[in-house]
Amino acid sequence: MKIAVDAMGGDNAPKAIIEGVEEARDLYPDLTFDLYGDPAKIKAVITNQDRLNIIETTEEISMGEEPVRAIRKKKDSSIVRAAKAVKEGDADAFFSAGNTGAVLAAGIFIVGRIHGIDRPGLTSILPIAKPGSKRQNFVYLDTGANAESKEKNLVQFAYLGKFYAEKVLGVANPRIALLNNGAEEDKGDKLHKDVWQLLNAEDELNFIGNVESGDLLFGKADVIVSDGWTANAALKATEGTAKMMLTLIKDGILNGGIRAKLGYLMLKPVFHRIGQKMSASTYGGAVLLGLKAPVVKTHGSSDATAVKNTISQIRTMLRTGVINETVKFFNQNNE
Amino acid sequence: MKIAVDAMGGDNAPKAIIEGVEEARDLYPDLTFDLYGDPAKIKAVITNQDRLNIIETTEEISMGEEPVRAIRKKKDSSIVRAAKAVKEGDADAFFSAGNTGAVLAAGIFIVGRIHGIDRPGLTSILPIAKPGSKRQNFVYLDTGANAESKEKNLVQFAYLGKFYAEKVLGVANPRIALLNNGAEEDKGDKLHKDVWQLLNAEDELNFIGNVESGDLLFGKADVIVSDGWTANAALKATEGTAKMMLTLIKDGILNGGIRAKLGYLMLKPVFHRIGQKMSASTYGGAVLLGLKAPVVKTHGSSDATAVKNTISQIRTMLRTGVINETVKFFNQNNE
Repeated sequence: MKIAVDAMGGDNAPKAIIEGVEEARDLYPDLTFDLYGDPAKIKAVITNQDRLNIIETTEEISMGEEPVRAIRKKKDSSIVRAAKAVKEGDADAFFSAGNTGAVLAAGIFIVGRIHGIDRPGLTSILPIAKPGSKRQNFVYLDTGANAESKEKNLVQFAYLGKFYAEKVLGVANPRIALLNNGAEEDKGDKLHKDVWQLLNAEDELNFIGNVESGDLLFGKADVIVSDGWTANAALKATEGTAKMMLTLIKDGILNGGIRAKLGYLMLKPVFHRIGQKMSASTYGGAVLLGLKAPVVKTHGSSDATAVKNTISQIRTMLRTGVINETVKFFNQNNE
Repeated sequence: MKIAVDAMGGDNAPKAIIEGVEEARDLYPDLTFDLYGDPAKIKAVITNQDRLNIIETTEEISMGEEPVRAIRKKKDSSIVRAAKAVKEGDADAFFSAGNTGAVLAAGIFIVGRIHGIDRPGLTSILPIAKPGSKRQNFVYLDTGANAESKEKNLVQFAYLGKFYAEKVLGVANPRIALLNNGAEEDKGDKLHKDVWQLLNAEDELNFIGNVESGDLLFGKADVIVSDGWTANAALKATEGTAKMMLTLIKDGILNGGIRAKLGYLMLKPVFHRIGQKMSASTYGGAVLLGLKAPVVKTHGSSDATAVKNTISQIRTMLRTGVINETVKFFNQNNE
């Protein structure tokens, strides 16, 4: 299995990217990598070129560029070239830590949507934080590929999430929930009321009803489906608050004198475990589900461990055939 | 100044309500209270009836009831009677910890909107959690009075928030921001793009642009304006995550052996301060801004301190004349 890697994307590229790729290469003998980017910069950080193939590209798409224009104009950028390799069958999956919009645009316009899918959904694998929970994480989409969504899109997101949870996370008959502003069936605006009815009518979905954004990380469902606008607002608020709570504790410790500092030393393992649990990079990157191949994006600030974890996630997607399963379902339903 | 109190609303009513009212009464010699509810139940918990007048009502609106139907049918409920007293000039403000929907409906249909206001906005005063911030809190609306909002509503929310920040929080020239899915002017769906332009065109607003939900508590603005749907999703996610972080820490301590427990004892003052800072009840209740009088709702789970703080907030609203200021502005702009 070959992964096309955007070696130039992300705040710590190419160093963190190459380090993570090398760690994954050493772990997984069944993987090879095509590294798209500036050969001189890539070679400067590679320690061992086994199963790593460098492919020269001459352009770069920066973090602030307008995505669709960038992928149209910069044909020789690492993002466009890596996505094209996947489209043409030269690679099985596309990985990047670069400009999110450009990666999404390259996924949609170059790799291409599965037949029958109207809009792909950007999918995060998030931690279940509730102590004692049997499951460690859940599937959450669409976290922002679409600012405006229709009823049909959300039903498709539910199926995309269901297949991911079954195949990649190994959950049998995953519980599907709708993010809404209340638990009852009649909650929400017209879109969410209608989607509730549509999801409830799908025999193949184990639909369990609404979940509120305050319960996002409480493990109430294996797949939480939402329009991109709301999911994005709730996800960012969750991430921002988790970060802010740790900042507040840190500040309290710094200003709490010797007693607080001693307390911190004793609680350090507890804080470390919470930090690990809440860190997005523990569970891999964001997957643009609904495309013909895995297109996976990690945070721009990803370190080598996050890159390695994301490649491990891509490998599981490839080995479990989650995309074939999805293609088969949507083909059957569009004949 | 007289406050009409729904003595029967909330999980701990009438005990917590009456205790909080008595604390406020003892603090503020300029306040009197009309307590609406079951006289026997109220008298059982009152310690001193000075400036407390009990008014008998025979019906109760429970937490689960459909709000609009409830206020239409239960004319002798404490919520309807207290709201009517305000409408008829027998009281200056309405306070409740009961059924949120019923309090909003009573506010809109009985107390009534200010001339020129299309939709009132449910307004929370939230903490600024960023260490070292000069300001302690900010104004956030609409947190859920409206599931669907129009451009015009959000511009009105901005003015409602501005007057509240100026008069009640004492902020000169408050910074107004729009909750959106990115910082740049062209971010968001059509509603948010249009509202950005409208807010930016208002000379009397100190509009500073977009704020993302991840930065909600970071003190970037004195007033954050949003449609009810998005504000509600972001607020609930923020509250849920803060609660969840504390749960995780508690669980880590309980399962971390003697070392973690010792650490906790030493950090206890730090956690206590954070808990205080993050507690909604420190800053009062949610105000339905845009009505002809203060209508203020606290959490159903409010204790006596939360009730006292909310009454203190209502007193500040009355003393500063924030509603007169708002009425004057909207009258001038609707001649």
